[in-house]
Amino acid sequence: MAATWTKKDLLGLEDLTKEEIELILATAESFKEVSTREIKKVPALRGKTVVNLFYEPSTRTRVSFEVAAKRLSADVINIATETSSVKKGETLIDTGRNIEALKVDIIVMRHNYSGAALMLARHVHASVVNAGDGWHEHPTQALLDMFTLKEKLGRIEGLNISIVGDIAHSRVARSNIWGLTKLGAKVTVCAPEMLIPAAIEQMGVRATQDIDDALRNADAVNVLRMQFERDEQNAFPQQLEYFKNFGITQERLEKAKKDIIVMHPGPINRGIEMSSEVADGANSVILEQVTNGIAVRMAVLFLVAQANEHITNENTN
Amino acid sequence: MAATWTKKDLLGLEDLTKEEIELILATAESFKEVSTREIKKVPALRGKTVVNLFYEPSTRTRVSFEVAAKRLSADVINIATETSSVKKGETLIDTGRNIEALKVDIIVMRHNYSGAALMLARHVHASVVNAGDGWHEHPTQALLDMFTLKEKLGRIEGLNISIVGDIAHSRVARSNIWGLTKLGAKVTVCAPEMLIPAAIEQMGVRATQDIDDALRNADAVNVLRMQFERDEQNAFPQQLEYFKNFGITQERLEKAKKDIIVMHPGPINRGIEMSSEVADGANSVILEQVTNGIAVRMAVLFLVAQANEHITNENTN
Amino acid sequence: MAATWTKKDLLGLEDLTKEEIELILATAESFKEVSTREIKKVPALRGKTVVNLFYEPSTRTRVSFEVAAKRLSADVINIATETSSVKKGETLIDTGRNIEALKVDIIVMRHNYSGAALMLARHVHASVVNAGDGWHEHPTQALLDMFTLKEKLGRIEGLNISIVGDIAHSRVARSNIWGLTKLGAKVTVCAPEMLIPAAIEQMGVRATQDIDDALRNADAVNVLRMQFERDEQNAFPQQLEYFKNFGITQERLEKAKKDIIVMHPGPINRGIEMSSEVADGANSVILEQVTNGIAVRMAVLFLVAQANEHITNENTN
Repeated sequence: MAATWTKKDLLGLEDLTKEEIELILATAESFKEVSTREIKKVPALRGKTVVNLFYEPSTRTRVSFEVAAKRLSADVINIATETSSVKKGETLIDTGRNIEALKVDIIVMRHNYSGAALMLARHVHASVVNAGDGWHEHPTQALLDMFTLKEKLGRIEGLNISIVGDIAHSRVARSNIWGLTKLGAKVTVCAPEMLIPAAIEQMGVRATQDIDDALRNADAVNVLRMQFERDEQNAFPQQLEYFKNFGITQERLEKAKKDIIVMHPGPINRGIEMSSEVADGANSVILEQVTNGIAVRMAVLFLVAQANEHITNENTN
Repeated sequence: MAATWTKKDLLGLEDLTKEEIELILATAESFKEVSTREIKKVPALRGKTVVNLFYEPSTRTRVSFEVAAKRLSADVINIATETSSVKKGETLIDTGRNIEALKVDIIVMRHNYSGAALMLARHVHASVVNAGDGWHEHPTQALLDMFTLKEKLGRIEGLNISIVGDIAHSRVARSNIWGLTKLGAKVTVCAPEMLIPAAIEQMGVRATQDIDDALRNADAVNVLRMQFERDEQNAFPQQLEYFKNFGITQERLEKAKKDIIVMHPGPINRGIEMSSEVADGANSVILEQVTNGIAVRMAVLFLVAQANEHITNENTN
Repeated sequence: MAATWTKKDLLGLEDLTKEEIELILATAESFKEVSTREIKKVPALRGKTVVNLFYEPSTRTRVSFEVAAKRLSADVINIATETSSVKKGETLIDTGRNIEALKVDIIVMRHNYSGAALMLARHVHASVVNAGDGWHEHPTQALLDMFTLKEKLGRIEGLNISIVGDIAHSRVARSNIWGLTKLGAKVTVCAPEMLIPAAIEQMGVRATQDIDDALRNADAVNVLRMQFERDEQNAFPQQLEYFKNFGITQERLEKAKKDIIVMHPGPINRGIEMSSEVADGANSVILEQVTNGIAVRMAVLFLVAQANEHITNENTN
């Protein structure tokens, strides 16, 4: 792995080479140790400013980035849409340029529109890290999933990974598919027919509606969060039906590989996506994913900041 | 006082020995000086992460803990339910485990259910500090009340302390009763009959509905905040009635001990719980309580973090 | 400029002498360089606590103060009314005294009532920085506007500055008028008749309703944000009408001085206050204003903290 990181932004895994993904994972490995120290802090981003710009509420992702940035000694500013001047009709690009004018180094953005991170990145010199844009990508989630897989199974190449849930509307699924296939894993997606995008095979994955088929040879199953909240009237029967057909249960796991790894981006709907027994069971690495999220986000923040400094210096010289 | 602090959590004063309470108060004494320095900071918790997890809004308590943690050089992460994944149906235990997976050291939690802090503490290795759980306990408030008493009167043993207000629904009252009686004070509670719990005498306190009786021999009166907001229709006549019967006025104070101390956890409803004259008068130590809250919370954060480190080290060895 | 800063607060520019304003601008100049460093941090306010107390939402101003305070190494606590105990009926003075009791050094306050900052400042020993109070003053905005003018044009004395927009309800306009006239600029205000206060000439400015007249000899035009949101029914035709009569367009600029500077406190309503062409054009310094806001706020925070320390020391001795 002789790659060096040269991009000022992390927008998605579709844009990255295998080597770049491996570089992030290797960098994360070296940062993971920091969170086990008595003094969980390194000065890597001291005097840098990281802005968390969240147009959708997401405590988990915001907190993970905030902790990561603070462990790198950066100053962190949180901006949530609820209190933002976005309300006053400011466009995304104007907002981005205004934030950049504060001489911030990194903007971590969560946005409900696909492509928002790319649009922002094109208009600011600050680094942009995509913390989820619409149904498009959520690259740091996929990276922490891959980091966890590699940590548990020693490699990603050749693994059989199944992703179960609402594939059609999941940025987590898309980023995982891009990342895993680039690193040589075989990916199967499993969902009810209407939640599988029509042309999914073009992404190099296999699709099935049969959960037992998806689990059969899988080294790991990545279970997506289902969104039932909006339609409360019919939510409960739908949830029961979903659990019956796609829920990960101990019974189903027993027909899979003995050491199959169960992942979930959280928060889990217990009894819908999986049983509590599975969520808390020996195969689950769900909380380790959360821990690894810090290391992966530290790595991403560090790499983009460093690359951006080089870019700036070259432009100056 | 040869006690050492060995508990990873601070959940309530009911669980503590007299010696443990005195240890917190003594530790707070040494931290109080920090906030008077030009550089109000010590490195005691540098590289530690403190999460303020607030399921109820409480700017005062959150800010006090945030200031305390920052003066100890900790990194602080604020999570309010409004923006939390709690909305998405995550349970308290899952939330706690997820926060712990970020390798945080201390979770300061405010929650509307009694027992929530205990439940959380049992399921995470991180230290849990109860910042108020339902009607149960609010230990740091009682500790800062006791710290203030000791500072003003030199001791707690043998003092006559009256607590006035809605005893039945007050975690502040409960924590004060536990703490004060353990340290040898004589506690009187005073409220309208329906706001005194039936079995209150079993907690070792005397109950009265006569405010003049409560004030007569008191060395200090701790006046609780009344909650009238929810019933706006009848709020005003109720408030007038309450002030007439239980409000602390200069006139009533003149029949009490000359140096009686007037305390209130804030924010005060002027003209309901006490007159403005009393709130701002010579007997009032209400703002000193706020100042002492920082010292007490610094002490608590410091002690639980230190104890937890010992526990972790022993488990590792 | 032999002035020294002796005031514990910054409440408005009306109260300041020419020398004091120049001292802030000179101090800001020396701080501007900090934000261009690789490590954008100086230890000037290390161990100090700055509270952002915002009774009105304003992400831009809050973030600017937060970044400024952090670059000075201060600890920053954000309090927004949404979560404040203000809800519980606490008065401003009680809130201020409670915050002060936390031994904070500076309270940066945004409030919807004119005079709120002065009222707070009179009741606390902590420094108060007015971040906008009703229609009264927004001194740091005017200071950053003046800093930008001086940076671009080398001086303020003798300049012709036009302020366009809702003069009657603008604290930005008022603070600019006080500051600019003190430093010897000639100020013209331009707005529809009903948005110009009756006695505006008494502030030493010229009023006109003719935008071309306002632009003719102007060295700079400061364009205020218009508030149309509340009346959505009629907003669109009103906006069109406003843009037609007062909007800054490239066509209008071409009749003005070639190097006329276009300023706006942000966020811009493109197509209402000015065309996008102007907002992003060669005459616009709008984003530089944002950058300069950090330097000016660093200077203000630094000066009031330093002055307050001297006051405190003298009172102690």
